Amino acid sequence: MCFGTGRPAPLLRFLFTFKIESLGYRAHSIPGAERTAIGITGNKGEVEPGTLDEMPGVQEVIRVTKPYKLVSRDMKDDNTVVSFPGSDATFGGPGLAIVAGPCAIESREQAFATAERVHRAGAQFFRGGAYKPRTSPYSFQGLEEEALQIMAAVREQFGMKIVTEAVDHESLELVEEYADVIQIGARNMQNFSLLKRAGRARKPVLLKRGMSATLEEFLMAAEYVMSEGNYNVILCERGVRTFADHTRNTLDLSLIPAVQRLSHLPILVDPSHGTGKRNKVTPPDQFDELMAQVRQIAPVVGRTVPGIGEHVTLAAAGTLSKRPRR
Amino acid sequence: MCFGTGRPAPLLRFLFTFKIESLGYRAHSIPGAERTAIGITGNKGEVEPGTLDEMPGVQEVIRVTKPYKLVSRDMKDDNTVVSFPGSDATFGGPGLAIVAGPCAIESREQAFATAERVHRAGAQFFRGGAYKPRTSPYSFQGLEEEALQIMAAVREQFGMKIVTEAVDHESLELVEEYADVIQIGARNMQNFSLLKRAGRARKPVLLKRGMSATLEEFLMAAEYVMSEGNYNVILCERGVRTFADHTRNTLDLSLIPAVQRLSHLPILVDPSHGTGKRNKVTPPDQFDELMAQVRQIAPVVGRTVPGIGEHVTLAAAGTLSKRPRR
Amino acid sequence: MCFGTGRPAPLLRFLFTFKIESLGYRAHSIPGAERTAIGITGNKGEVEPGTLDEMPGVQEVIRVTKPYKLVSRDMKDDNTVVSFPGSDATFGGPGLAIVAGPCAIESREQAFATAERVHRAGAQFFRGGAYKPRTSPYSFQGLEEEALQIMAAVREQFGMKIVTEAVDHESLELVEEYADVIQIGARNMQNFSLLKRAGRARKPVLLKRGMSATLEEFLMAAEYVMSEGNYNVILCERGVRTFADHTRNTLDLSLIPAVQRLSHLPILVDPSHGTGKRNKVTPPDQFDELMAQVRQIAPVVGRTVPGIGEHVTLAAAGTLSKRPRR
Amino acid sequence: MCFGTGRPAPLLRFLFTFKIESLGYRAHSIPGAERTAIGITGNKGEVEPGTLDEMPGVQEVIRVTKPYKLVSRDMKDDNTVVSFPGSDATFGGPGLAIVAGPCAIESREQAFATAERVHRAGAQFFRGGAYKPRTSPYSFQGLEEEALQIMAAVREQFGMKIVTEAVDHESLELVEEYADVIQIGARNMQNFSLLKRAGRARKPVLLKRGMSATLEEFLMAAEYVMSEGNYNVILCERGVRTFADHTRNTLDLSLIPAVQRLSHLPILVDPSHGTGKRNKVTPPDQFDELMAQVRQIAPVVGRTVPGIGEHVTLAAAGTLSKRPRR
Repeated sequence: MCFGTGRPAPLLRFLFTFKIESLGYRAHSIPGAERTAIGITGNKGEVEPGTLDEMPGVQEVIRVTKPYKLVSRDMKDDNTVVSFPGSDATFGGPGLAIVAGPCAIESREQAFATAERVHRAGAQFFRGGAYKPRTSPYSFQGLEEEALQIMAAVREQFGMKIVTEAVDHESLELVEEYADVIQIGARNMQNFSLLKRAGRARKPVLLKRGMSATLEEFLMAAEYVMSEGNYNVILCERGVRTFADHTRNTLDLSLIPAVQRLSHLPILVDPSHGTGKRNKVTPPDQFDELMAQVRQIAPVVGRTVPGIGEHVTLAAAGTLSKRPRR
Repeated sequence: MCFGTGRPAPLLRFLFTFKIESLGYRAHSIPGAERTAIGITGNKGEVEPGTLDEMPGVQEVIRVTKPYKLVSRDMKDDNTVVSFPGSDATFGGPGLAIVAGPCAIESREQAFATAERVHRAGAQFFRGGAYKPRTSPYSFQGLEEEALQIMAAVREQFGMKIVTEAVDHESLELVEEYADVIQIGARNMQNFSLLKRAGRARKPVLLKRGMSATLEEFLMAAEYVMSEGNYNVILCERGVRTFADHTRNTLDLSLIPAVQRLSHLPILVDPSHGTGKRNKVTPPDQFDELMAQVRQIAPVVGRTVPGIGEHVTLAAAGTLSKRPRR
Repeated sequence: MCFGTGRPAPLLRFLFTFKIESLGYRAHSIPGAERTAIGITGNKGEVEPGTLDEMPGVQEVIRVTKPYKLVSRDMKDDNTVVSFPGSDATFGGPGLAIVAGPCAIESREQAFATAERVHRAGAQFFRGGAYKPRTSPYSFQGLEEEALQIMAAVREQFGMKIVTEAVDHESLELVEEYADVIQIGARNMQNFSLLKRAGRARKPVLLKRGMSATLEEFLMAAEYVMSEGNYNVILCERGVRTFADHTRNTLDLSLIPAVQRLSHLPILVDPSHGTGKRNKVTPPDQFDELMAQVRQIAPVVGRTVPGIGEHVTLAAAGTLSKRPRR
Repeated sequence: MCFGTGRPAPLLRFLFTFKIESLGYRAHSIPGAERTAIGITGNKGEVEPGTLDEMPGVQEVIRVTKPYKLVSRDMKDDNTVVSFPGSDATFGGPGLAIVAGPCAIESREQAFATAERVHRAGAQFFRGGAYKPRTSPYSFQGLEEEALQIMAAVREQFGMKIVTEAVDHESLELVEEYADVIQIGARNMQNFSLLKRAGRARKPVLLKRGMSATLEEFLMAAEYVMSEGNYNVILCERGVRTFADHTRNTLDLSLIPAVQRLSHLPILVDPSHGTGKRNKVTPPDQFDELMAQVRQIAPVVGRTVPGIGEHVTLAAAGTLSKRPRR
């Protein structure tokens, strides 16, 4: 696989794509700050360079030797910033993305009460479970579409964007319709059929690391989504399974700089699984205090905290580490 | 959840089921050697005992406190034996189940050549990949339905039963149609939507342990299948992920006696992932030697090796440990 | 085992100890902010309460049911602060402890060059290897006593306290003589003979977590040191061994709050093993930048950074989390 | 490092050694079935080939590039067989080595009662703990020299060879005096000071794999012992630490063929830690049954079971896998 890159006019981009697809490959046009990369996938062996680099507007043709292609910084050097129409919240921009909400949506009252608190404290994204992947078939499996409707109402009321998990093709259909970000959970990180379906969705995908996924497997799962044409992938570290028994999972923070070195995709941290058997994640009562700390720490590492109005402030389940600007 | 047990006449069993379902629960009638257990699921709290143990034919009502119910030996003391019409091959009987075949079905020629060899050496089950869950979206994903058709022809020719993996609802539909055993792979062990679909299938399910699944999570995944009414579940240990780097996975043989103590379900061992970076599993060339050893070892631990005609015998990816007779 | 507690005059404390030891037990007198706890170890069964709680000055007798006794907050509620004569550097106080230095002391020049840099940046403790536990018997095993002499000269020159590892009884003897803190490495965390010897040393002990030690095993290792009478133990998280292959070890930051909840001992973080195959720990060149960040972040979480003169700078391999004040 | 090999007469061997040591290296003369290998360690860079391969009797000079040298099959192709004067019991020969005994020696009566049972069932080695590395400083730490004396009496009475653990230099001194095999426990696998001391002992060393040791680290620990001149090292797999919680450790049987491929040293399996929280290892009551099975299985994989007189029986904590004859 190799990539033709350039910063072509729309007409040129169209011609490239046409040419590439006429060769039987798939073209992925991913614009960056300084040039547009056009990824080529679907080739069996090496793409014959001559056919591409002689086209007008092509700066260079790069062969990506890593197993992940579209995910790689070789393909796109700029950080990917996932943004939302009518909102200044982003994943991957200088502002921290703050995602908060209850494990499961249990009722309209519960959802609105939590939403009011976390919105006031500065969360830009509201996450709640509509479809819950539960270890036991006899446990509550979520309110399903009713929960999606409640979250849509939360968005209407508070302006927060909605993040929620899809567990199969059927639920993904509905999540795509109602939510702003489609979450793929840790247990489905290698459910390749679901990843491909998410790759055909028109909404960004928040992909959680599997419980025992290596860095490469994690990036390859993102590649599955991107290979189908959805380039808005947000990675999420949530802890891995180890012998350690004082927490349910061991949060692997060293993954963050490793991902940032290899990939242009944004990555966030979900501390709710890695911090203990009892829920050690700050519930809304303590959320204000956490946000006040994040607000002070963020600028130290070159990040900002997007605010709403003047009562503003605050902050982030997103990682505080500096993202390299490459 | 609790269970009414007895060895009722068909009419009585029908009445039980009717009664249980009229209470809003689900009834699972699982016959054993000495009595028929009727599992009840779907209850929120405890089922009022009076309503059930006064029914004629009920021997006792047992409350299963473990998180897995239908899977548990508390529910059914006898070993579950999964058998196949027109065949003496079983999973869970005294005879060892021998499963062999190529990683992926690549062509009719390759499939038949392998099938001929492993059949001659004594395999009763032919396993090959039609839908391959591959780490990379750019790797060969399997011949899909064409592979299923090839395996159906292998069955026709050699009489071996067919085992193959389903990766989503769509492929499960086809696997259910063509194969004899529906495999759920390690990566999908907690794809609960797929487990529930497999629970509604009319074919036995071979469920592989996830790469970092605890014993309880493994049994709970089987419970998902059984809770939907499919009681023919075969468990499979294939190695887990650890720090050890001399093999791709660490085969956890101690799981076998632990499962046999807690559950009536059969369990087999797939040594192909746990034994190294290079393929250390005996290819058909060495399969004869392995089978000759298994044939000698099996009786030492009280197992038999089913034979075909007089050229007979031989042996097993199944575990050689004694299954407790409880 | 149980503990008599009170805030006795020296004479009373002497009498307690005499009484306890006359019963065949060992007394550990550990003064806290508000009262003096006297730990009793060496009892086989329960100590008869009557014999102790009737003594004058005893406030209460508490039975510590956890396997670690002297280590536990049940024994001593106040945080232990390890301090050094003639220095305001501490482990466990509000000021962060900053430890820095080269992996191994290779020469006087190398040691002094590094020491000058890290001292200027604010390190209060200089750590360098004199006895190196190397995987290969053919690798450089350290300059041994010569390295200790070099580090003593570094202390003389820069005022930093010296931390260095002892690997057996013989080296511990010398480390105790030359250094200010005796380090026990991860590989020796369950070298119980060495732990007991360190427990008889007159210098504080920095105990690193073993590569696959559970929280309880880690605290029990500290208990070994304390049970011999050395109560100045500093714990150190340095990463654990997991399947993850993007770093040599997985830094388990969630251990910090777990230790702080259970134990009064200070704990620090050594990021040098958990952050990668290549050395991702800031070398002296980048140390200033790191210290500048730490200086800004520390007050956000209620910690201070001890400064020297006005060029201050500086900071911490110590954990930035708030230590609970109990 | 490189090795001169040949099958020299004693005089030639002496001359080699003299030559090598005069160059400032250390010579390790390790006789094999067909030739004598002379390992050279202590060299910094490559040993100049000319100096050695021109000596009379030298067949070839091989450079061992692996980090383990004396341990490697490159150094010595034949399997190492550890034998004992006046006994036909071996580690590494065709006969299985059977080691059995109580966790700790608690009294003469207990030791003799167990010894009588396991000896009758066919054990050739009696193992019991005199120095116990216990997680808690308050647990029973072993009868120490008294236990060694009891075990010496067991040897006198039953003829079994004695295996027991040393935990530091002091106990190693005594174990070397009383026992036939010096065990180094898992917690001390990287206690390099103890390994070097064991390398100067005149008795074979049984080295247990550390709880999270990689294959290479395990072999390097054996190299520490051998580098000091003790070439009678027996490796022992006893389970590693993983996330799995149904057993205390996960027995990693795939290590056996991996070790046998890389090293000439014998390896045995200790199933007592890897098989459960409750003691699932056969106590003497069931030992007979186990031995009867082993006796039948051993010949299937080309191993024998050494017998005493005609009541034979017996069998093996040793691995049943075929050792390659290279």
